[in-house]
Amino acid sequence: MGIHIGIDLGGTNVRVAKINNNGMVEELLQEQTEPEKGPIHTIENIVRMIETIADGEKVDGIGIGAPGPLDPHKGVILNPPNLPGWEEVYLVDELKKHYPTEIQLNNDANAAALGEARFGSGKGYHSVFYITVSTGVGGGLVIDDQVFSGAQGYSGEIGNMILNPGGYQYSNLNKGALEGYASGTAIGQRAYELYGIEGGAEAVFELVSEGDKRAQRVIDEAIEYLAMGIANLTHIVNPDVFVIGGGVMKAGDLIWIPLREKVKKYLYPGLVDKVNLQPASLSGDAGVIGASLLTR
Amino acid sequence: MGIHIGIDLGGTNVRVAKINNNGMVEELLQEQTEPEKGPIHTIENIVRMIETIADGEKVDGIGIGAPGPLDPHKGVILNPPNLPGWEEVYLVDELKKHYPTEIQLNNDANAAALGEARFGSGKGYHSVFYITVSTGVGGGLVIDDQVFSGAQGYSGEIGNMILNPGGYQYSNLNKGALEGYASGTAIGQRAYELYGIEGGAEAVFELVSEGDKRAQRVIDEAIEYLAMGIANLTHIVNPDVFVIGGGVMKAGDLIWIPLREKVKKYLYPGLVDKVNLQPASLSGDAGVIGASLLTR
Repeated sequence: MGIHIGIDLGGTNVRVAKINNNGMVEELLQEQTEPEKGPIHTIENIVRMIETIADGEKVDGIGIGAPGPLDPHKGVILNPPNLPGWEEVYLVDELKKHYPTEIQLNNDANAAALGEARFGSGKGYHSVFYITVSTGVGGGLVIDDQVFSGAQGYSGEIGNMILNPGGYQYSNLNKGALEGYASGTAIGQRAYELYGIEGGAEAVFELVSEGDKRAQRVIDEAIEYLAMGIANLTHIVNPDVFVIGGGVMKAGDLIWIPLREKVKKYLYPGLVDKVNLQPASLSGDAGVIGASLLTR
Repeated sequence: MGIHIGIDLGGTNVRVAKINNNGMVEELLQEQTEPEKGPIHTIENIVRMIETIADGEKVDGIGIGAPGPLDPHKGVILNPPNLPGWEEVYLVDELKKHYPTEIQLNNDANAAALGEARFGSGKGYHSVFYITVSTGVGGGLVIDDQVFSGAQGYSGEIGNMILNPGGYQYSNLNKGALEGYASGTAIGQRAYELYGIEGGAEAVFELVSEGDKRAQRVIDEAIEYLAMGIANLTHIVNPDVFVIGGGVMKAGDLIWIPLREKVKKYLYPGLVDKVNLQPASLSGDAGVIGASLLTR
């Protein structure tokens, strides 16, 4: 029996890991992605990293989590903002030239969702909605331990959920979309525009912990929209559990306590005490762990 | 082999039908529900109607579509606004006293979704999101020909999706929820409040077809919100097909043409030509057909 490889391909770093059957990282290599050098450069690096990690062992499956948009059914990376210059890269076909085994590509949030569902805070639940609140806001739906990618692979793209038509526009998303209010980037931008607070979301939370009222207002708004988004997901999907990760959620009680309260305001009465929000537990390794699970 | 019964329990009428394996209605009885006479009265009527339809044949399965909120896992109707005075009615247990066979309860939109997915416009698709735009706005998600009910049975309750915080409040739903903008009731109310137009949604569409600009503005707003709701569902679930039914959709081109255009504005570029919107095709029978499929 061979080994399983999980790859977390990000705009800054690419991580290649050997993951065992218990979802543990046995070996991991990390290098800079340098997307500006083009996909061929990165693919060559990935192949070399797999070779190093496999070290002669048979490779039974390779899973890759990568920034969207991408097409998981065709194994092609389309034109992600986080991999500038990449366009229609048939990553699965390229890797198959070197490893004629099962290879699956999915977006990074879906891969992390799968990791959390099988080995993290979503373990044992029938349906898991994973949410990441980080630079952006993304998500992934896992049903019966399988990623539900959707027809074109856009399931879980909750950052683009409209919550306030005509509202704040962020990047190429819809006006008033969730990501424009609740992402770390949005929090940092809003704090700077309104009050000249510098240093991004981390600085804003630092100020909140010191009792700063202006920073508190910025965070309150972000949490309000995140709560509305979670209520919408409940009335659309009603998953058994929400698993929520990403850098912003590391602010701990400052975000978790008000978030749990605010979500309740927007739920049908019968759901108020039933919606289950859990912090993600695999932290930085969810990407490679989840990716390796795409093939098994 | 026995027969399969589908029951469509509404606030006004209750319909009991024998549905064959091809999803065809072989026999149907309809009576008034008279919910104010209490659940026992209605249950007795239902039992009598089943007896008449079965006519001595063995009953292999009974499925019931009913107004929410209800708990499909426990077979209990909670306290639906459309069945006033009903509270915690264990309908499945009650019917099992008479028919010791498989009996399933789900909400009416989920039942209709299942009917459309197996025998209507959703036939052959892996994932179907059914939407009904009628007195209210509801929906149901079907994956691999099975209803996805969610943890507490609230999957598909899209009428309560927040699209405009602080916006129009309708019934017991969230402020600015989809149903408050796009339902037939909302269209009628809005037309009356803004312009004194009487006669409900039907009268509004009649005026639109005559070129009335005020009625057009009311409809434009309703379609705009419906389009945002569909875009949100696409970025959350990305189903293979949306099947859209309900009385409001019978306005034909007046609603379908602008709806298809407006949805595109809110989609990721890669999805613009791919989102698949289809009119429901089982019309009034989707309820009993879908209900009968809950047990098979």
